[in-house]
Amino acid sequence: MVAEAPILGLRALFFDVFGTLVDWRASVAREAQNILGTRGHRLDWQAFADAWRSEYQPGMEEVRTGRQPFVKLDLLHRRNLERILPHFGLRELSDDILRELNLAWHRLDAWPDVPSGLTRLKTKFLIAPVSNGNIALMVDLARRNNLPWDAILGAEIARDFKPKPGVYLAACDAFDLKPAQCMMVAAHSNDLAAAARLGLRTAHIARPHEYGLNTGEPKPTVPVDYVAESLLGLAEQLGA
Amino acid sequence: MVAEAPILGLRALFFDVFGTLVDWRASVAREAQNILGTRGHRLDWQAFADAWRSEYQPGMEEVRTGRQPFVKLDLLHRRNLERILPHFGLRELSDDILRELNLAWHRLDAWPDVPSGLTRLKTKFLIAPVSNGNIALMVDLARRNNLPWDAILGAEIARDFKPKPGVYLAACDAFDLKPAQCMMVAAHSNDLAAAARLGLRTAHIARPHEYGLNTGEPKPTVPVDYVAESLLGLAEQLGA
Repeated sequence: MVAEAPILGLRALFFDVFGTLVDWRASVAREAQNILGTRGHRLDWQAFADAWRSEYQPGMEEVRTGRQPFVKLDLLHRRNLERILPHFGLRELSDDILRELNLAWHRLDAWPDVPSGLTRLKTKFLIAPVSNGNIALMVDLARRNNLPWDAILGAEIARDFKPKPGVYLAACDAFDLKPAQCMMVAAHSNDLAAAARLGLRTAHIARPHEYGLNTGEPKPTVPVDYVAESLLGLAEQLGA
Repeated sequence: MVAEAPILGLRALFFDVFGTLVDWRASVAREAQNILGTRGHRLDWQAFADAWRSEYQPGMEEVRTGRQPFVKLDLLHRRNLERILPHFGLRELSDDILRELNLAWHRLDAWPDVPSGLTRLKTKFLIAPVSNGNIALMVDLARRNNLPWDAILGAEIARDFKPKPGVYLAACDAFDLKPAQCMMVAAHSNDLAAAARLGLRTAHIARPHEYGLNTGEPKPTVPVDYVAESLLGLAEQLGA
């Protein structure tokens, strides 16, 4: 079902960030090239970004299942980085370079529609990231890309990772809202399905090139309330 | 000791809110008058605001000592409201009116220097409220007064109330900073003393009329790093 008019009683929009709001792939590839390429390393930077990202879900799964206590995504990124380096023949990087490289995730660029889209949506709704990224990372992305958040919610507040229910529910609770008054906005159907199961509204944003040309979801694979090609399209549909 | 130049390595400023950034007394008195006065009640509105605020510390102390689990300040405000109503002869207010009255704390006005002061300080430092107020309340005050926070930190993140150490330390941790890289900014010496004991830097802002004419702290009663008459004065000293 796709809503034809703004849903009554909708008060807050929660945003997935990696992939939905920011182009992590091109940004991480660029940052890695800036840091390593200038030091004489030659590699396929996009493949490097993809390899790093491919460790993302397994790293979080240890926390979701309770096998490991919650740690910030920055720490998981660092562990994942150390895991992939040997595959790229990178064995003797200093701790300073590893730290700098890990901060690539704090320097991601937003898709072009995002700053203006959020600014419009904020005129009608509370807006917050509900990402698996930690607060410091979200703050750096917000500063870099002018994302006018009302608050930084998400994994670090909930001490768990999406799609665990507690992350969505902690966000609703922080704003004193019921799930039906909140909408999850994401480019990934599994994120939206998890939110919908808890009673949140959902909006799918197409980011078809997230992992490279025609690799992302052009449309949702689950029922959602809104389907849009960009945040501006969503703002239009929501009358913002 | 008062610093003569910006402290090296300072990265984030944490702000007390009630009294330091917003004039809770005049605002609560005005809101109560708007809600109750128009319904025919006649009382000393400032005395009403003072009485409500006087229950503030005892309510939080139950949580600080562990006698009660953490609850949001909104809920304590509501309990405190119900406690003082009989003293003002207000016995039969509907639940709707009580709820509306409780939201008076979401409609507080900032002191005049605050929006421009924060905007200047944000050019050099991460800025966040570290208040005993809950996230939804902080978000409403930010929207009302154009407070350009990087994130909303404070009691709700830490699940405890200032001056318990965990509240200050949770704020430093959220920004991935050491206490010495953070500064607490407040109009209340006890708040600053608690932060200083943990290694945070401190700045005192004079709000001499917080509880009415010449009732607030014109100067700190403990050693601090900076002393200012307003956020603009602090921005000046910090080169922001």
